[in-house]
Amino acid sequence: MSYLDKTALQVVGTRPIRPDGVDKVTGRANFGADMTMPGMLWGRIKRSPHAHARIVSINTEKAQTLPGVRAVITRADFPDITPERAHIGAAPHNLRDMSLNCMAKGKVLYEGHPVAAVAATSPLIAEQALDLIEVEYEVLQHVMDVEAAMAETAPLLHDNIFTAGIEPKPEKPSNIAKVVRFAKGDVKAGFEEADLVIERRYTTKPVHQGYIEPHACLVSVGADGQTIIYSSSQGQFMVRAYTSRICGADIANIRAIPAEIGGGFGGKTIIYLEPLAYMLSKKSGRPVKIVMSREEVFRATGPTSGAVVEVKLGAKRDGHIVAAQSILKYQAGAFPGSPVQQGCICAMAVYDFPNALTVGYDVVCNRPKVAAYRAPGAPIGSFALESCVDELARELRIDPLRMREINGAKDGAKATHGITWVNIGYQKTLEAARASQHMKVALKPNQGRGIASGYWHNAGGESSAAVHVNEDGTVTVTEGHPDIGGSRASMAMMVAEVLHIPFERVRPVVGDTTAIGFSASTGGSRVTFAGGMAVTQAAEKVIEVLKKRAAVMWEISADAVEWKDGKVYPAGLNAGTFEPLDLAAIAARSARTGGPISAEVQINAQGQAPGFTTHICDVEVDPETGHVKILRYTAIQDVGRAIHPSYVEGQMQGGVAQGIGWALNEEYVYDQDGHLENPGFLDYRVPVCSDLPMIEAILIEVPNPRHPFGARGVGEVPIVPPMAAVANAIADATGLRLRDLPMSPPKLRAALDEREPTRVAAE
Amino acid sequence: MSYLDKTALQVVGTRPIRPDGVDKVTGRANFGADMTMPGMLWGRIKRSPHAHARIVSINTEKAQTLPGVRAVITRADFPDITPERAHIGAAPHNLRDMSLNCMAKGKVLYEGHPVAAVAATSPLIAEQALDLIEVEYEVLQHVMDVEAAMAETAPLLHDNIFTAGIEPKPEKPSNIAKVVRFAKGDVKAGFEEADLVIERRYTTKPVHQGYIEPHACLVSVGADGQTIIYSSSQGQFMVRAYTSRICGADIANIRAIPAEIGGGFGGKTIIYLEPLAYMLSKKSGRPVKIVMSREEVFRATGPTSGAVVEVKLGAKRDGHIVAAQSILKYQAGAFPGSPVQQGCICAMAVYDFPNALTVGYDVVCNRPKVAAYRAPGAPIGSFALESCVDELARELRIDPLRMREINGAKDGAKATHGITWVNIGYQKTLEAARASQHMKVALKPNQGRGIASGYWHNAGGESSAAVHVNEDGTVTVTEGHPDIGGSRASMAMMVAEVLHIPFERVRPVVGDTTAIGFSASTGGSRVTFAGGMAVTQAAEKVIEVLKKRAAVMWEISADAVEWKDGKVYPAGLNAGTFEPLDLAAIAARSARTGGPISAEVQINAQGQAPGFTTHICDVEVDPETGHVKILRYTAIQDVGRAIHPSYVEGQMQGGVAQGIGWALNEEYVYDQDGHLENPGFLDYRVPVCSDLPMIEAILIEVPNPRHPFGARGVGEVPIVPPMAAVANAIADATGLRLRDLPMSPPKLRAALDEREPTRVAAE
Repeated sequence: MSYLDKTALQVVGTRPIRPDGVDKVTGRANFGADMTMPGMLWGRIKRSPHAHARIVSINTEKAQTLPGVRAVITRADFPDITPERAHIGAAPHNLRDMSLNCMAKGKVLYEGHPVAAVAATSPLIAEQALDLIEVEYEVLQHVMDVEAAMAETAPLLHDNIFTAGIEPKPEKPSNIAKVVRFAKGDVKAGFEEADLVIERRYTTKPVHQGYIEPHACLVSVGADGQTIIYSSSQGQFMVRAYTSRICGADIANIRAIPAEIGGGFGGKTIIYLEPLAYMLSKKSGRPVKIVMSREEVFRATGPTSGAVVEVKLGAKRDGHIVAAQSILKYQAGAFPGSPVQQGCICAMAVYDFPNALTVGYDVVCNRPKVAAYRAPGAPIGSFALESCVDELARELRIDPLRMREINGAKDGAKATHGITWVNIGYQKTLEAARASQHMKVALKPNQGRGIASGYWHNAGGESSAAVHVNEDGTVTVTEGHPDIGGSRASMAMMVAEVLHIPFERVRPVVGDTTAIGFSASTGGSRVTFAGGMAVTQAAEKVIEVLKKRAAVMWEISADAVEWKDGKVYPAGLNAGTFEPLDLAAIAARSARTGGPISAEVQINAQGQAPGFTTHICDVEVDPETGHVKILRYTAIQDVGRAIHPSYVEGQMQGGVAQGIGWALNEEYVYDQDGHLENPGFLDYRVPVCSDLPMIEAILIEVPNPRHPFGARGVGEVPIVPPMAAVANAIADATGLRLRDLPMSPPKLRAALDEREPTRVAAE
Repeated sequence: MSYLDKTALQVVGTRPIRPDGVDKVTGRANFGADMTMPGMLWGRIKRSPHAHARIVSINTEKAQTLPGVRAVITRADFPDITPERAHIGAAPHNLRDMSLNCMAKGKVLYEGHPVAAVAATSPLIAEQALDLIEVEYEVLQHVMDVEAAMAETAPLLHDNIFTAGIEPKPEKPSNIAKVVRFAKGDVKAGFEEADLVIERRYTTKPVHQGYIEPHACLVSVGADGQTIIYSSSQGQFMVRAYTSRICGADIANIRAIPAEIGGGFGGKTIIYLEPLAYMLSKKSGRPVKIVMSREEVFRATGPTSGAVVEVKLGAKRDGHIVAAQSILKYQAGAFPGSPVQQGCICAMAVYDFPNALTVGYDVVCNRPKVAAYRAPGAPIGSFALESCVDELARELRIDPLRMREINGAKDGAKATHGITWVNIGYQKTLEAARASQHMKVALKPNQGRGIASGYWHNAGGESSAAVHVNEDGTVTVTEGHPDIGGSRASMAMMVAEVLHIPFERVRPVVGDTTAIGFSASTGGSRVTFAGGMAVTQAAEKVIEVLKKRAAVMWEISADAVEWKDGKVYPAGLNAGTFEPLDLAAIAARSARTGGPISAEVQINAQGQAPGFTTHICDVEVDPETGHVKILRYTAIQDVGRAIHPSYVEGQMQGGVAQGIGWALNEEYVYDQDGHLENPGFLDYRVPVCSDLPMIEAILIEVPNPRHPFGARGVGEVPIVPPMAAVANAIADATGLRLRDLPMSPPKLRAALDEREPTRVAAE
């Protein structure tokens, strides 16, 4: 069935309170670190103090004899994962690398890389035991930056990386794990045809997702191997799959229970702690809890890549861009797997370039392995391209919105990465931007306005859902994805809509890995799309059951009943005369009509629709300090169908807030030895409320016809444009183009000083 | 599909270690009292010191002001349940009575009846607060015994009980809640036809299930009403249903999580604590834990009925019983609902009496409301009838086994309660008894041998099951019934059998109420039957999915694949040539062939088969002390199909052990004011290992054709015969007939003394 007609909807599109809301604001919700078990031990991790070193020896004897210490583990406790077993199913990660990232083997590859772990009866004893573990290192030369790591003479992190994606296959190992390339048309001819060609270089620093909740888990391995994992993650099935492989356990032996999650943004689509807690529990015979400190989060979990992006654009005088080229070099951290491919795809995808080439490099270096961060890879490439388009527009003296109207992606056009657009709302975001109140506000001195657009492809994939009709006609919906952005609400709303009952009669539950079929992680803006498709189908299956049960109650054929507005009716005059039955009436008799009423659905959801957005940002620059104040910010986004508009707006506001942090302040500061100097929120500066205006969200709804309610992913694309929108606004305010993130006060002040050296001298 | 051919089975019938076994013997398993939550309070219950009294007033003010007390509740905090809402669905209990049993209204009806409850930051403070609650009572005359309670002049417990089951409907209330009656043939004519008629009166005392784990729960009610209940019970869905009704909550708002259960035996098919903890949590805004003491278990949870049973039998000289009559009077405790009907049915059901009448009385009295106890009601009636048949056999000088061969139920015969027997194994148990080694052992002086048979009808009902095939081909089975007797093992075995994979690759999980469809409680010997039917069907559904997925992988029609021995094969030559695929191979590709592989089934299982058993008991009586030693005990039972023979044997041994305790020692001792004098295991004497021989279990397998594996319930019937078997053995050893349980040393010694008064004088 289709529910695309918005006017017929009763629940979808309204704004009920999220089912997990009250517990979260009253402090009752249980996050990863809130769990306890009888007899529980505390785990702590010994980490490398070096950015790159060979492990000569590890002596754990003293630690093991400290009273209260119950287990000490090192790499020797883990099975090796062969390259053939490094990938499972559709999971995107290399498990061999993940295992080596959880516990170093032979070499440490970044400051913070785990080398041993301890479980003890108290956190203090565990800390003391860490100091008793003696590790002898042979320090190696390290490399932190992407271009340095690409150099022929760079110190090698791994001896088994032979650049993939190039022909012929290299004979020598390097730090370049992969080269990706997308091309369309004839880019050389395009540049020759252009009236104006500009080339620019943009650089970004790694930034962290900054989730409030550090990673935490509690793992209990029974003497027979049966295991319970409580942890905070973006996917309990992901936790189960990765832990089982890294620890060599049968999947059925692991029950992964999702705690509430205090933010993930991609950073919890992988695991760090669970395998260590598993091995400590196995060795000690006791449940083991490990909770990271914030410092550990910064030193040893994945930020997104720092990068260098070179962009070259060629345009006609009328603003038509005839050729575009971008070279993206992304830090992967200690193991391959930067999101450079997404960076290549997403930046270009906003435009219908006749000729385009984009090449990406995935490069390892002595930093923590990067992790997914909201629209992984896209913001970096888009910062560069959206800045460069703005530079081009300014040179051509063309309104930046007009530049995008001319060159932007439209239905029927083919993107550089090969896809042909259907049902996309990009141009509608531009129309809405042009029509917005925001664009009508006049700017004052030192103020500027920036425009930037963004694209994210959104994901589908495997989801399961169960709908149980309880004896009183209330409904329990069980899904398999942790709720990060309000998906409990959206799931319950779709079920309530299909069953035509009040939202409050439906209670959604995020089940553990034994409570529901396999469900891929919460990520890729997939849950309301794929999970919503699954719950909708399950609710529809329940309706079929309800019709059959009513038929049994009425002793007529199931064909002779129909479902309408939340009730079963006899269909037509020949069916007989019966009072219609609602869920409660049918549920009350379910035992006598065939048993409990439930339906479960498993799908691999296809048909996710692209997300496009356009942002408008006004800034005011303080020429004295270089401080940039965000005056006003409007995000306009094609959301397909806003199941719960407040949480869609929240996603947009949250993405913008993170993007502004990335744009203006956030960065990792390493010293020359590869030691992180700002591993805490006092020195790593994420935006706080006073840094931000109320972010306006304008929802464009171009329904996705391949989703029953028209939903498309909404959670990630909002982080794509802000860095360029802010940069473009600063350029508008100051005439200065900042091409290195973050655009922090010292940098802007330096740029101002450079332009006006007399002023520096005068001070 | 049917798996009745035992020779084709690989897993069913073997004896693997139960999946919960290791955790239970290592102490890792979590029972009701093991759970904790952040911010948790401790609840304690104020109970009536009187057997019968009017509550004049309750003053909680002082308790409420005690520092650390966070909530005090009384009846005023609970909604009233109207008689119309006192029953839900197929649930057997009166919820209005259950609510009043959880918290007294107006009157207290037994010593231990709750009148208030407290939640405080420590158990000690909660205890102190109880003492500060002032309750003023007007003590009323009480009545403890069933015949006294039936008297016209007896004090009335309730003013709204008008005996049901008699015509005309009585005009005056009484303590007799119900009269039940089953008749067959012409009992008057039968007795007239008889050569010998005997009439006997038997009496039993209430006995407690004696589960090791006292009731315990932890309840968290969120500010928005969403609730988590952890508790130890025989049914998480039962806990959810009853708590929701008693507390006035939507079912969907309650998630009931089953803890491991330390024994139930019927006593945990109802609730006592959850509604109190719910209301304390709601009022305090904090999770509340309540754990009963053993004393509370004895004073205020349901034992089974004490009873008076009058039996009259008429027989021909050749042993044919031509008429049977029994009058059963069962204590219900404070509210109606003794298992007298089962007592009437089950005792008679063993025999094919041509003329029979049985009448039962359900009588309230000032004792704790009785609860189900293993084959509820049956052991009491059977103690009487099986003793009386033995008395008759002795008078007729006919071997007691022969008496049962002559008169016992057979296929095609109609029972007194109207059922016609099919596929019953009763006569086979007699054959096996006759052929047993046990019968060949010669008896010495003071030794005797008793025979008794038993019947229990076993239950079916609602069950749900889910089978999830994990990415590595291991299998998770989720069921909704707490595992008491090893049902995790039996569920996993049936699934392993159907899927043709090793038992160890299947992991069963008892899910919470959001993890699986509704499932009726563990009780009525129903789980391996009904749950097994559900898991078998779910596994078969999974096979259909596997076949479809293989067809997608091979790009052939789903009709062209077949399932054989745990693998999918191309069916026939035209299907093409492909290597067969096992679960792991198909699961590894499931994302690409349609998504996760799971199947869920909901059923209301019909076709449970009757359970018959015959027991042989040898005793030795110590004439000095009256102590009875059980020398040897053999239980022969038609188990249909033993899915896991060890756990079937365990059920038989456990039932016999409890029956021996009931026979010889267990009883409630009340003083004249209705105060229990032995509320603890030191004074209420359950059998310990040294009291028992190794109980031999002989399994007869007459498969139940209405179950895929032929299973019939096995857990309850073993407790039915022991009391009569022991009494018959004592009579055989001493010539003395004991007709009042327990047959404790003082009673036997008194009977010996009465027979030989000279010996008494000589001492």
